[in-house]
Amino acid sequence: MAAWRERLAGVRGVLLDISGVLYDGGAGGGVPIAGSVEAVARLKHSRLKMRLCTNESQRSRGELVGLLRRLGFDVSEAEVTAPAPAACQILRARGLRPHLLIHEGVRSEFDQIDTSNPNCVVIADAAEEFSYQNMNKAFQVLMELENPVLISLGKGRYYKETSGLMLDVGAYMKALEYACGIEAEVVGKPSPEFFKSALQEMGVEAHQAIMIGDDIVGDVGGAQRCGMRALQVRTGKFRPSDEHHPEVQADGYVDNLAEAVNLLLKHADP
Amino acid sequence: MAAWRERLAGVRGVLLDISGVLYDGGAGGGVPIAGSVEAVARLKHSRLKMRLCTNESQRSRGELVGLLRRLGFDVSEAEVTAPAPAACQILRARGLRPHLLIHEGVRSEFDQIDTSNPNCVVIADAAEEFSYQNMNKAFQVLMELENPVLISLGKGRYYKETSGLMLDVGAYMKALEYACGIEAEVVGKPSPEFFKSALQEMGVEAHQAIMIGDDIVGDVGGAQRCGMRALQVRTGKFRPSDEHHPEVQADGYVDNLAEAVNLLLKHADP
Repeated sequence: MAAWRERLAGVRGVLLDISGVLYDGGAGGGVPIAGSVEAVARLKHSRLKMRLCTNESQRSRGELVGLLRRLGFDVSEAEVTAPAPAACQILRARGLRPHLLIHEGVRSEFDQIDTSNPNCVVIADAAEEFSYQNMNKAFQVLMELENPVLISLGKGRYYKETSGLMLDVGAYMKALEYACGIEAEVVGKPSPEFFKSALQEMGVEAHQAIMIGDDIVGDVGGAQRCGMRALQVRTGKFRPSDEHHPEVQADGYVDNLAEAVNLLLKHADP
Repeated sequence: MAAWRERLAGVRGVLLDISGVLYDGGAGGGVPIAGSVEAVARLKHSRLKMRLCTNESQRSRGELVGLLRRLGFDVSEAEVTAPAPAACQILRARGLRPHLLIHEGVRSEFDQIDTSNPNCVVIADAAEEFSYQNMNKAFQVLMELENPVLISLGKGRYYKETSGLMLDVGAYMKALEYACGIEAEVVGKPSPEFFKSALQEMGVEAHQAIMIGDDIVGDVGGAQRCGMRALQVRTGKFRPSDEHHPEVQADGYVDNLAEAVNLLLKHADP
């Protein structure tokens, strides 16, 4: 692999995944990953631009930022690109009225959306709300539509909490796709539209941007397909086999966000 | 399409799906499909051999037969090919100790199986037991195995109860396959091994047998791939679009089991 100096040359903006990079979720909200609070602070005080790009769909941006601030991170709602607001834009633009299979924590993002007489289904990381009854209701709504539309906020396979790996929305998206014989529309990483909106909000071109995430497919592969560079951290859901993934190779693997920021400040913002 | 006489020539044995053909499940056990009690009785008194071939995995064979007998069907446990006993044979033969994600009603079929220190996961139509917590536990067991083995009792997309369509085990199998990056082993229809064991137990060759089911893919397509003929009934989960399925065409479509048995007694056992 080329030297870090070459790999990071010309980087002007950094997109950060949140869960597994800034903190590990879990009982009581979660715990920051060692060194990440300071790394975010250093990044924000550098000449590099920074934006948070998350598939978090269990909490509203307000709740998420509140949690991060309680954990010590100096971040604001305006710095977060998240799938629920992006989904609301799509629903409004296409006149879609969703049946929502979502976590209570994110419901406020959909406060202004008409959910009467649904003509589509939106699923998010609903966690315990993924009961058989709720899944069956979403399934029945889809089966009654002539042209069933399923919108999934992300398609992650799993994420890591302090108590262990947890099934993510992607698994339940696949369940509904199979049961209904349809293909979902994904809003969130790795959808190119989603990365592009994060880049636009950061004001940086793809070739000048780098994504830092713990998901080799959703974060790293997705960002690379948009023309960005991407680093994988060895925290969160990282597994050693990710470094030999059959389809995706990161532009670099680092122990954690702190190491990534050290390298960026040294080579991209000297 | 050829005349019924040609299509049914040489049939010596009949495999019957149960749910959606004999009865529709639902509150209080369910209700027989009009004419099916008499159709089974006529078939059993004919020279044709008959066997029940089901993917029912929510109840033990004993419970299932008890329910059918209460609904008026003259059937016995020895006439039923079901996936749970077939799975137990496989578990024993391969020294597999399952973590079971199943309905309480079928647990007795696994009474003699060692479930300590699991080295595989078995899922069945667990219905309300498909909670997030239970799915997550099965997922975590699989992720901790070096060679994760997932055995699914059937892979149906959905079935019909009196209250409406219900998600079947196949949807949850797909969820775990995706989350773990693995492929499940299916025990039950449309697995050729499963059809072959039903044929063997009935003592009839594939080319002399016909399957009658409400599932165009699992029943009809599966049986045809084994060299059997297959009829689809317009009861249970049948949908009009099934008659124009892109991949599977039944050897005939009939309104219900009663019509199928009329035709068989007229043309195959004159």
